[in-house]
Amino acid sequence: MAAQFSSKDFRAALSSFATGVTIITARDLKDEPIGMTASSFNSVSMEPPLILWSIAKSALSAPSFTNAEFFAVHVLASDQTEISNKFAIKGEDKFSNINWSQDSNGVPIIDGVSSRFDCKTYAIHEGGDHWIILGEVIEIENNSKRGLVFSEGSYSTTSAIRPNNQIPNELDTGSSLIDELLIYQLARASRQVENLFHKTVDEEELTIPEWRILASLYGNASRSLSELCARTFVDPGVIIDILTRMSIDNLCTLSDTKSEMIITGTNDGMKRVANLFDAARNQENAILTDLNEIERVALIKQLKSIIRTTNN
Amino acid sequence: MAAQFSSKDFRAALSSFATGVTIITARDLKDEPIGMTASSFNSVSMEPPLILWSIAKSALSAPSFTNAEFFAVHVLASDQTEISNKFAIKGEDKFSNINWSQDSNGVPIIDGVSSRFDCKTYAIHEGGDHWIILGEVIEIENNSKRGLVFSEGSYSTTSAIRPNNQIPNELDTGSSLIDELLIYQLARASRQVENLFHKTVDEEELTIPEWRILASLYGNASRSLSELCARTFVDPGVIIDILTRMSIDNLCTLSDTKSEMIITGTNDGMKRVANLFDAARNQENAILTDLNEIERVALIKQLKSIIRTTNN
Repeated sequence: MAAQFSSKDFRAALSSFATGVTIITARDLKDEPIGMTASSFNSVSMEPPLILWSIAKSALSAPSFTNAEFFAVHVLASDQTEISNKFAIKGEDKFSNINWSQDSNGVPIIDGVSSRFDCKTYAIHEGGDHWIILGEVIEIENNSKRGLVFSEGSYSTTSAIRPNNQIPNELDTGSSLIDELLIYQLARASRQVENLFHKTVDEEELTIPEWRILASLYGNASRSLSELCARTFVDPGVIIDILTRMSIDNLCTLSDTKSEMIITGTNDGMKRVANLFDAARNQENAILTDLNEIERVALIKQLKSIIRTTNN
Repeated sequence: MAAQFSSKDFRAALSSFATGVTIITARDLKDEPIGMTASSFNSVSMEPPLILWSIAKSALSAPSFTNAEFFAVHVLASDQTEISNKFAIKGEDKFSNINWSQDSNGVPIIDGVSSRFDCKTYAIHEGGDHWIILGEVIEIENNSKRGLVFSEGSYSTTSAIRPNNQIPNELDTGSSLIDELLIYQLARASRQVENLFHKTVDEEELTIPEWRILASLYGNASRSLSELCARTFVDPGVIIDILTRMSIDNLCTLSDTKSEMIITGTNDGMKRVANLFDAARNQENAILTDLNEIERVALIKQLKSIIRTTNN
């Protein structure tokens, strides 16, 4: 059956399903440590305890992983984007300059993760252009650190939300103790403002990555690909798909120079982002309606002071 | 091989791996619409386009799903916690009072989702106490809405973070246009303060759900289970595991009344939360060091005003 959509469409639709980020490690056929970043991890069974992940049949390390008797799944913590990138790059000497040890089966173990599952290979199933690898979990390490998330093309962290069948109480974050902390006032105000803004972005029929890309192009002639990744927090592995879609929608143009792709906003794209910016400004005025001009200026000044003090 | 850990330990370690939330629908053996909430979804293959999810062999609908020729995966949007809960409950009349239609194969389709994958069953694999169901994606709907996430026992939303090998510029959110918006000042201040606070919670060897539970018990004799869920945003399906672990660690005691479980903080638990609260207060003072007392009071007042205006 021929699919009625492209791989790009498929990947774009998948990007709304957030996942944690893992690094899977094992020993290769020559007994050298191998590892790769994977977000295809999930739990399968409680009794016996089984997990699974998938590896492209075309991956260099596929023969090693499908032949390994043991492997380890490391669920990365939110401060581990660097090691995630390191293990996502093909051919890089991945185990240099990181803290690692090995378990009793010789499987490489990486430090500082949120949790780890030491597995014995349980089954391998065919899955199109991937192998699905099932592991029986034989040991667990749980450091309960905040997990790293990959969502809509960017590394992310999560914040708990109030289920929408619960009636929110004014200023009630659930505990008077919590209520007194700046962090919860800040988190709740931020989350509520963000929810409203996301609705506005939805109404303008843009995604958040598209909005960030267009905003980064606004007022500038053009930007290089690496510059755009750094400014939008969108992953280099994902941004090309998004930009290609945006250029088809006539929101930006892409041109190749000798060294790198250059992205330029179109008039259409700049009009869209200007509209959204106006809508956001109107929304902001409505949100700040109870504050006078002096209070608004003071608020921004105080937020900037907090950002400066906590910048690291 | 006997596992050296309990199912509770396994579930706790898995909870640091965030996932999106899906509802899977099909027709049962009597051609009635069926559906269930699942977070075991993941993509498998690009060519052919394959996805997978797992269903407990003991689930009432397992025979129907394993026999269905077609099924649909709905990736839920962040405002769909209610329908997620509805489809997570056994036996509930799930298709009453919701907007649904059906595709050309009769598969029930739910409105308002972030994306949808219409699938033809491709393979079913044994996976311990679950069946692993692979689907070939035959059609896609992508509404690009912000996805719902389940992480550390709570419904959540995600915020993009700056990869930690990038050097942050002071107050540079990537675009001068974005810089001018309150939402980004608020989001960045909130995220940075939150990151610092999470480190403090880590140092006190508590998890965020544990901190929220203890804070909700602080200063009160005791709380019922449902009250605690509502105040901490921790899912009813997960909180029992967490509370059991906490009672073993002597952070709280659990007692059953006729109607519901009652949770009471222990002296140890209350000491831990008081310590954390003190640490958070000290951190807050350091963060607000550039603000005088009048500015601090004004900041809290302004944040409360924003929370009130955006409360919905």
